[in-house]
Amino acid sequence: MDEHTYTPTLEEAFVKAAFRVSGNGPRNINVLKEALEHVEGTTGSDHYGNGELIEQFQQQMADVLGKPAAVFFPSGTMAQQIALRIWCDQKDVKRVAYHPLSHLELHEQDALKELHHIEAVLIGDKNRVTRLEDVTSITEDVACVLLELPQREIGGQLPPYEELEAIADYCRQQGIRLHLDGARLFEITPYYGKTAAEICSLFDTVYISFYKGIGGIAGAILAGDGDVMQEAKVWKHRHGGNLISLYPYIVSSKYYYEQRIGKMSEYYEQAKELASLLNACSYIHTLPEVPVSNMFHVHIDCPIETTRQVFKDLALQHNIGLTSYVVDQQGSCSFECTIGDKYALVPQEQLRTAMKWLDGELAKRA
Amino acid sequence: MDEHTYTPTLEEAFVKAAFRVSGNGPRNINVLKEALEHVEGTTGSDHYGNGELIEQFQQQMADVLGKPAAVFFPSGTMAQQIALRIWCDQKDVKRVAYHPLSHLELHEQDALKELHHIEAVLIGDKNRVTRLEDVTSITEDVACVLLELPQREIGGQLPPYEELEAIADYCRQQGIRLHLDGARLFEITPYYGKTAAEICSLFDTVYISFYKGIGGIAGAILAGDGDVMQEAKVWKHRHGGNLISLYPYIVSSKYYYEQRIGKMSEYYEQAKELASLLNACSYIHTLPEVPVSNMFHVHIDCPIETTRQVFKDLALQHNIGLTSYVVDQQGSCSFECTIGDKYALVPQEQLRTAMKWLDGELAKRA
Repeated sequence: MDEHTYTPTLEEAFVKAAFRVSGNGPRNINVLKEALEHVEGTTGSDHYGNGELIEQFQQQMADVLGKPAAVFFPSGTMAQQIALRIWCDQKDVKRVAYHPLSHLELHEQDALKELHHIEAVLIGDKNRVTRLEDVTSITEDVACVLLELPQREIGGQLPPYEELEAIADYCRQQGIRLHLDGARLFEITPYYGKTAAEICSLFDTVYISFYKGIGGIAGAILAGDGDVMQEAKVWKHRHGGNLISLYPYIVSSKYYYEQRIGKMSEYYEQAKELASLLNACSYIHTLPEVPVSNMFHVHIDCPIETTRQVFKDLALQHNIGLTSYVVDQQGSCSFECTIGDKYALVPQEQLRTAMKWLDGELAKRA
Repeated sequence: MDEHTYTPTLEEAFVKAAFRVSGNGPRNINVLKEALEHVEGTTGSDHYGNGELIEQFQQQMADVLGKPAAVFFPSGTMAQQIALRIWCDQKDVKRVAYHPLSHLELHEQDALKELHHIEAVLIGDKNRVTRLEDVTSITEDVACVLLELPQREIGGQLPPYEELEAIADYCRQQGIRLHLDGARLFEITPYYGKTAAEICSLFDTVYISFYKGIGGIAGAILAGDGDVMQEAKVWKHRHGGNLISLYPYIVSSKYYYEQRIGKMSEYYEQAKELASLLNACSYIHTLPEVPVSNMFHVHIDCPIETTRQVFKDLALQHNIGLTSYVVDQQGSCSFECTIGDKYALVPQEQLRTAMKWLDGELAKRA
């Protein structure tokens, strides 16, 4: 390719930029290499769910989440289906309720229905978080309600904590189990001013992920009562998730948990700061306007091609990578922003200059 | 613990022995560290089943197996259920047939029934390999026959190749799909004198494992036609196996595949040699008597406690680790022996001396 005519893509420009506002850096093999450097090579593998390496980490996470037991899973897709299946089997009701934009509804190829024959009741308005009234107005018999905190597909929004307590009370009274999709649980603890265990105390079962805010490679924990976790191990085996060795994910989950668990408040404050800078730009608004975790969505009221070019120029001329992609929203466009380790490295002066340039440039080209 | 009275377990004695007849060494974190040393840290992760790292290895394995396409899975338990589900859905018959000691029957917590509502028809005598007559005498309508080569639970036995061809012909005529549980496929190529692709050509879908003879950490490949593999990817997603990053398993599978694929004949010859030495001992016989792969079972006609003590003494006094465990068989006992890299390191003279000692010792104590 002729270097004089070569134009980088937005993703390439983002990666090339000296500073990036989001993420923890590239998802490459060094992420695993770094975690492994801190573990003795003679440490024995876990063995089909047994052994010190997996059992110690499961107990550590059970303690963090304030639950009697926890099981490590290769994925949240597997962990959550299993939690819901156990609650459905226990009540002999093959129906659960959740938000219309739940991960299970959008990103799991109808697994709950195809694999477990469980029907989903979609509750509430897809453009807002689940409310108590959405739960109390369920007319079908359901075994379990799943709440996703924060609600990722609408920018990571949260209900007030009192609303969560009211939902938990109601479910307990009605004999409906409450499950937490806590893929980003640690990220919301600063906003609620609660520990992970305090939030989890409202739920019967809880799933957390290690490659969102924690920035590990993959892996998930499901936590709850001991007998439920025993059953979850049987289902993990059936799903094909009880690998002879899960240690690459366990070692990296533990390492990055310890690296980043203390940084959640910092990420949250930085998310609010960046959202405020973006909201000061014409044609840009964030959802939510004031973030309640380390994530938010950015909506740009310009056609996708124009926006892509402006963001590319921002990266190439100002060395600030804002995003690697934009998604078309019929005339406007958007992207998701998640604050990680990289934000703290961005020089504030340079960021503010770049945001002012962005403001002017969008006004000019929109 | 007082070191003067401390008695090691058989497993500890096995690990301590300077030489071990089986395996590739301890399953510890160094296995992953070694594989990673040979990969650039800046290599990008696979991303939910996409990316060069996973796609290249899938194509490499498709080529090795002589199939148009292949999908990398975290486990064989997941891969095989999915292959059978696809064949059942295609024929709209929720029934498959396999050997009574199949992995799916013994080691998967009834997953096929509980997750996929597929019924298993057990064919033939559990103490021998599947024969053509077992397949032709199936009276129920089945979507698929699964053959496990070698049949692990009976010491890794194999039908004659002509019998496989006859079964494949019959299934094709009857519109029954044929699936290969080839967890140890590479290990049987020297006995049959066929390439992996030649053997696979008899089957519609094939599963292979990377932590048996190959000695990787975990991981499996399912191979077959392109449209079937596309469907398999959807089911992999539903099972929760479409991880954002599978590279720890892919990198190690590829590394150890390349390390060991050329050694399968050597392992096979060594297995025959060791079995012959063991069969020369009183009270010991192997199953099969002459191995047809790198594995065989060892039966000892002595009570388990006596045997455990003799094997422990063998390890402690002769520095030869024969096995880390024995399984009770009501008065007698047994263990599985799988030849890997470690066998070549055992000094032949020392091994023969130890086997003579073992012969005498069992005769004395039995």
